[in-house]
Amino acid sequence: MASWLSIPAKSHFSLANIPFGIISAKGSSTKVPATAIGEYALDLSTFARGQGFSQLAAIQPHLDVFSQTTLNDFAALGRPIHRQVREYLQSVFKADTPFPSLLKDNESLRSSALIPLSAVTNHLPLQIGDYTDFYAGLNHAYNVGVLFRGPDNALQPNYKHLPVGYHGRASSVVPSGTPIVRPSGQILANPTATPKVPLFSPCKRLDIELELAAFVSTENKLGQPVSVDEAEDHIFGLVLMNDWSARDIQAWEYVPLGPFNAKNFATTISPWVVLVDALEPFKAQGLEPGNRDSLLPYLKEKRPDNSYNINLEFDLKHAGSETSTRISTTNATNLLFSFPQMLAHHTITGCNLRTGDLLGSGTISGKEPGSQGSLLEHTNGGKEPITLADGTTKRTFLEDGDEVTLRAVAGSVDGAYVGFGECVGRIERAVEFAFNS
Amino acid sequence: MASWLSIPAKSHFSLANIPFGIISAKGSSTKVPATAIGEYALDLSTFARGQGFSQLAAIQPHLDVFSQTTLNDFAALGRPIHRQVREYLQSVFKADTPFPSLLKDNESLRSSALIPLSAVTNHLPLQIGDYTDFYAGLNHAYNVGVLFRGPDNALQPNYKHLPVGYHGRASSVVPSGTPIVRPSGQILANPTATPKVPLFSPCKRLDIELELAAFVSTENKLGQPVSVDEAEDHIFGLVLMNDWSARDIQAWEYVPLGPFNAKNFATTISPWVVLVDALEPFKAQGLEPGNRDSLLPYLKEKRPDNSYNINLEFDLKHAGSETSTRISTTNATNLLFSFPQMLAHHTITGCNLRTGDLLGSGTISGKEPGSQGSLLEHTNGGKEPITLADGTTKRTFLEDGDEVTLRAVAGSVDGAYVGFGECVGRIERAVEFAFNS
Repeated sequence: MASWLSIPAKSHFSLANIPFGIISAKGSSTKVPATAIGEYALDLSTFARGQGFSQLAAIQPHLDVFSQTTLNDFAALGRPIHRQVREYLQSVFKADTPFPSLLKDNESLRSSALIPLSAVTNHLPLQIGDYTDFYAGLNHAYNVGVLFRGPDNALQPNYKHLPVGYHGRASSVVPSGTPIVRPSGQILANPTATPKVPLFSPCKRLDIELELAAFVSTENKLGQPVSVDEAEDHIFGLVLMNDWSARDIQAWEYVPLGPFNAKNFATTISPWVVLVDALEPFKAQGLEPGNRDSLLPYLKEKRPDNSYNINLEFDLKHAGSETSTRISTTNATNLLFSFPQMLAHHTITGCNLRTGDLLGSGTISGKEPGSQGSLLEHTNGGKEPITLADGTTKRTFLEDGDEVTLRAVAGSVDGAYVGFGECVGRIERAVEFAFNS
Repeated sequence: MASWLSIPAKSHFSLANIPFGIISAKGSSTKVPATAIGEYALDLSTFARGQGFSQLAAIQPHLDVFSQTTLNDFAALGRPIHRQVREYLQSVFKADTPFPSLLKDNESLRSSALIPLSAVTNHLPLQIGDYTDFYAGLNHAYNVGVLFRGPDNALQPNYKHLPVGYHGRASSVVPSGTPIVRPSGQILANPTATPKVPLFSPCKRLDIELELAAFVSTENKLGQPVSVDEAEDHIFGLVLMNDWSARDIQAWEYVPLGPFNAKNFATTISPWVVLVDALEPFKAQGLEPGNRDSLLPYLKEKRPDNSYNINLEFDLKHAGSETSTRISTTNATNLLFSFPQMLAHHTITGCNLRTGDLLGSGTISGKEPGSQGSLLEHTNGGKEPITLADGTTKRTFLEDGDEVTLRAVAGSVDGAYVGFGECVGRIERAVEFAFNS
């Protein structure tokens, strides 16, 4: 699909994408909904005020969703409306648009509503009520299980029967670019010594987790589960997520109730929400399709290919360096459960999901070297350092000044990529405590 | 302190209390802030409009907090304002009020602003951002640890070094009186059989957890921990909490990331927030004060008595019965960590707390028979049934139609109790699933 707007062939934001986010023009504090297209953001507030949506009847009663500072109201409208808005914006931007007067030939609206991406600041796309993180990356769960419990007990008996998950911290979910202060907390200087006596320290094993995450669109009421085959219609779209993890704090605190301080200091997401409809052509089978037959009925999907063929990667750049090092490349098919399965499982007890709730996939790792979604796995628990691109700098875990960039993109045809852009965070030094000197 | 209003001697809402909540008059959908006093609620929206606050200069710039549908804006004003509003309302209601014309002798305002508690509906007092549940009830953690892992490993090595906690589910926190639908999920028919294969079933081991919980007033910014000695000033007040728990779902799902579906279906809180200043006279030492000396500095409090002498109890009434059975009585001093310690630990990594966040204490159990805060402990893991007051009905876990009532009160002098009222929930039968027949 060609556009009258010049869109780079490798752009994540081709006409096949049309993701949604919240932006402000640099120097302004006014947040507005937007879509990303090529190297531009289309300010949907200005576009709506300029009659841009005048040829889409379905959105007329709901135009106020584009004058909000979050996408929650838009998301709550439900998938049929999201689909129509996306297809309408594609028709507005395509080379042979049936509505040239709306934007293509409307120089005034183009100059006010189309803003170069380099001139916008991205914000959290939705106000997040609850954030849940699943653990559906089978290879990650196995790799971490081996490190914590050995190969014989790497996966717990429940692992293949249900999408294991835990409640995460919503307040500290931040948009790409937000600096990450190294957390401090209780760690064991020598994990094998007895008795176990912790010390207080800045985290020494600060890690990343490469994940995808789904935003909830329409809510379900308390006491009313969502069936697995209806679950996808409750998903607005996906973002990239880096679930920063303090491995030394985690190892000490996590029994018996799971990770808490090891994860609550920050979780970074990419700012553009890629709609489930934009990802539909990239549906693919996840791991162990045979496992699906043995699932309990509430997790059995009609379609067997509810994972996505999305390529994922993450880079590391250390302070003072201009060169990034590619650490890992992997693919989102490395999940044992699909997002609809996670959502159905989440609600099977009657738990209510609300618009803006965020569901993380769990860390996505492949089986091959160089495809692990965390440094913990990549360095075999910190025992095998990575050499960065300069040939001399070594890393096991993150050091102050390190910048981590996640990327994800679906598709293989120039001009038709459906990508997530970047999810970036840079480590700042720990808070200094008076009692820590 | 005597009042011109007739307040029953045993009332939880004496003049020494002045808790805050959100009410609507029965038959109305308008939610307003209120305080409870004796057998009445004072509608603070109507009181403010009727010049009731005219003699309190400090609140004048903030009167709009009393026309909101949650207490978040009031809570965010901070402890010095809460203290002044409470003391002012005490002066308005005391027998020798210096302001008789405001309410005592103002029949018009009295008739519009004072509503019998029997004629109001209570709502969630604050909009909850994140809900965290701690595990600071040492006796409970020990009792449950014995059941799950045996007496030698009952408490994990970290337990006495930090307030263990986990992120809970905010969306399903409901006010007292909300019906609780029995959750369904994956359970093991025979936990000791191998291989472990779950079945889908309504929960058969539905339990309660008797807790206190603190609402956060003023926020801290991401990356900026709150010190333990400043932490109490970030707490608005306390409520009673019943953290309903599906023990069979929990036992199967909780490794390695903690409870999820076993807790996410509902958590009930009492509707009136008792200010930390109202509880100040009831400060008391918690468990194992000697343990405090060995804590890391960030958890060491200047004052050693930051627990509360609050009496707690819970009753059970089965369907068709008019008689409640007292199951347990205990006291809030049965906590190893104080709320300020929990809050300081929560933020030590830089995690940001927001106004309206809720921090649960963990289940509060004594050591003696009849003082356990859950049925799991009370019935020794379901092996020793309780006989209810009718002399014939037995209970291990909750059955459909059972109504559980939690109560809590501080003080021992008639006319001066500081109580929480009741926290009630009744079990409704599970959802019927087509595939479950």
